[in-house]
Amino acid sequence: MTGVTEFSLIKQYFTFDSEREDVILGVGDDCALLAPPANKQLAVTVDTLVAGVHFPLNTSPADIAYKSLAVSLSDLAAMAAEPAWATLALTMPDSDHDWLQEFSTSFKESLKDYGVQLIGGDTTQGPLSITVQLTGFIEAGKAMRRDTARVGDRIYVTGHLGDAALGLKLLNIHDLPDSTIKGACVKKLNRPVPRVVFAQQAADYCGCAIDISDGLVADLGHILKASGCGGRIYFSQLPVSKAFRKSQVYLNQFNYSQMLLAGGDDYELCLVASAHNEEALFALAESTGVLLTHIGEIDASTSLSVINTAGEAIAVNTSGYEHFSDE
Amino acid sequence: MTGVTEFSLIKQYFTFDSEREDVILGVGDDCALLAPPANKQLAVTVDTLVAGVHFPLNTSPADIAYKSLAVSLSDLAAMAAEPAWATLALTMPDSDHDWLQEFSTSFKESLKDYGVQLIGGDTTQGPLSITVQLTGFIEAGKAMRRDTARVGDRIYVTGHLGDAALGLKLLNIHDLPDSTIKGACVKKLNRPVPRVVFAQQAADYCGCAIDISDGLVADLGHILKASGCGGRIYFSQLPVSKAFRKSQVYLNQFNYSQMLLAGGDDYELCLVASAHNEEALFALAESTGVLLTHIGEIDASTSLSVINTAGEAIAVNTSGYEHFSDE
Repeated sequence: MTGVTEFSLIKQYFTFDSEREDVILGVGDDCALLAPPANKQLAVTVDTLVAGVHFPLNTSPADIAYKSLAVSLSDLAAMAAEPAWATLALTMPDSDHDWLQEFSTSFKESLKDYGVQLIGGDTTQGPLSITVQLTGFIEAGKAMRRDTARVGDRIYVTGHLGDAALGLKLLNIHDLPDSTIKGACVKKLNRPVPRVVFAQQAADYCGCAIDISDGLVADLGHILKASGCGGRIYFSQLPVSKAFRKSQVYLNQFNYSQMLLAGGDDYELCLVASAHNEEALFALAESTGVLLTHIGEIDASTSLSVINTAGEAIAVNTSGYEHFSDE
Repeated sequence: MTGVTEFSLIKQYFTFDSEREDVILGVGDDCALLAPPANKQLAVTVDTLVAGVHFPLNTSPADIAYKSLAVSLSDLAAMAAEPAWATLALTMPDSDHDWLQEFSTSFKESLKDYGVQLIGGDTTQGPLSITVQLTGFIEAGKAMRRDTARVGDRIYVTGHLGDAALGLKLLNIHDLPDSTIKGACVKKLNRPVPRVVFAQQAADYCGCAIDISDGLVADLGHILKASGCGGRIYFSQLPVSKAFRKSQVYLNQFNYSQMLLAGGDDYELCLVASAHNEEALFALAESTGVLLTHIGEIDASTSLSVINTAGEAIAVNTSGYEHFSDE
C-alpha cells in the first residue's frame, strides 16, 4: 500500500471516537501520546495471528478481529491487569472494503466492551496477519506471575478445556447428528472469552496465573519451571463441556485426552493459589459467572504428573504436546 | 511454530540482559510489567516491515533488524520522545539459526545504542514480517506534533533527501563507474539514522515535526492538512548528498526530482518552526552533528507549492507521489 491508501484507510476504518481521558493524542500522528496512571504499573503484551496458522483461511473478518484482541486481553487477564490501550498492526494482501468494514466493526465493538482505546497502528501490504499490542494497568506488586507457585498450593482452571481444539477438528465435519456440538466448540475456537473481570479481582487471593493458549500441560509447565517446583493434576477433574462429552459419544476418531491436556487456543486461565483462599476464589468465580475447577496441586517434585482415571501417576513432558500418546 | 519451539527460541535469541530499572518484569511472562515515569507522558509507535514490500527479499538479517528498530525510533524522534521500551513481533517461515543469530545480534546492538530494552514479543510462523512497537517518554506539552504549524513559520529538513529511494534503484545496477555512490545510497536505505538526540533538544525551539518515511511532499502534506495551512518549498534548496549529485552525472534514467520530493524511506525529519528560533535550531544541529536545511515557508494558501529552478511555483498534490511528473 502506498502512503496515500494507508492514510485514508486508517481514517476510514480505524479512527474511532476517543473515549479515554488518558489518551492525549490517538491515531494520526507519528506517535500516540498517553498519560499513564500515577502509582500504577503497566502490563504490556503483544500477539500475532497469522492467516492459515492461527486461524483457518476462511475465518470471518469479524471473528479474526474479535480473536486478535481476545488473545491479548487474555494475557492481561493472566496478570490481573485492567485493559487500557491497544495498537493494531494489520498486514493484508489488498484493501478489500467489505473485509475491512466487517473487521473494523467487530474490532471496535470488542474495544468498547473492554473499555480499551485504539491508540495507533500500522497497515501494510502482505500476507494476512494481525499483531495487537495491549497495555493494561496494575497496582505494583499485585500482578499474578508465573514464578510464585509454592509447594502445597492448589491448581485451578477457569471454564472448560479442549473445546477450541475440538472446534478446529469439527470445522471440516458436516454430518454431525447433533449440530449443537459443532456450534459450541467452534464458538469457543473463534470467540474465546478472556477472563478479564474475574482475574482482576482474583489477584486479591492468588499471586500466580498463566493463560492457557498453548495447552494446559505446556502452560502449567511454564509455571512449574518458573517457580522451581512440580505438580500433579487429576485427569478426571478436568472440566469438560457438554458439547465435548457429546462429541466423545458420536466421534471416536479424536484423541480427546490430548485435546484436554494439550489443546491450545482455550484462553482460559490456570491459577495457582493457597488452599486458604479457595473459598474466596470460588465465591468470586460464582459472582462473576466464571466456572472454576480445582484440578490438582503443586508438589515438591521436579515434574508434572497426570493422575489418570485408573489412579496412576503418569509423568508428562511439559515442554510440548508432541510427546503425548492417547490413553 | 509450536509453543515449544517458540519458548526456546525466545530464550535463546531474545532474552537480553535487563538494564532499565523501570522494567519490573521483562520477556517471559504473559505480560511485561513496567513502571512508567512520574510526570511524563508516553509516546507510542508501531511499524511493520514486510519482506518483499518494505525491504528486498535478499536484505541481510542484520540490516532488517537495524531498520525495523530505526523506523520506529524515527517516529519517536518526530515527537521528540526519549526511547525506552520495545516489543518485537517476528513472523518467519522457519526458525533458521544463522538468520536468527544475525538478526538478534544486530537488534540487540541497536537497542543498546539507544538505551532501549526489549520487554516482550511474539514469534510466529508465516511469511517474514517484523512488527516493532516502541514506547518513549516526553514531558507533557513538549511533543512535536503535526497540527501546530503556523503561517510564517519556516520549514526545515534534516540530512539529505532521496538517497534511500536512489539506493533502492541502484541495488540492481552493478556496473557503476563510481562504487561510492551505490555504497552511500544503499547504506541510507538499509541503515537510516533516526534523529533521536537532535529531536529531543529541538523540541525546545520547535513544536511541529514529522518523519519523512513516505516522502517529503506527502509527509509535509500531513502537517499542512493537520495544521490547516499551506506552504511552499524551494526545489533548489533541497539538500542533496554528494552520492546523489554524482549519480545524476552518470545515470540519466532516473527521475531524480521525484526521488527528492517523494522518495520514501529517508527517515529524516521535516520540522516547522518560527524564524525567531532559527539561530538556536542551527546551533543545535551543528552541536549534534546533524545537517539542517531551511527549505521553505508555511503560508496562508491551502496547498503546497514547489518553487522550481526557474522560479515558478508549481502546486503539487500532497496526497501522493503518483501525480508527479519529471521536471
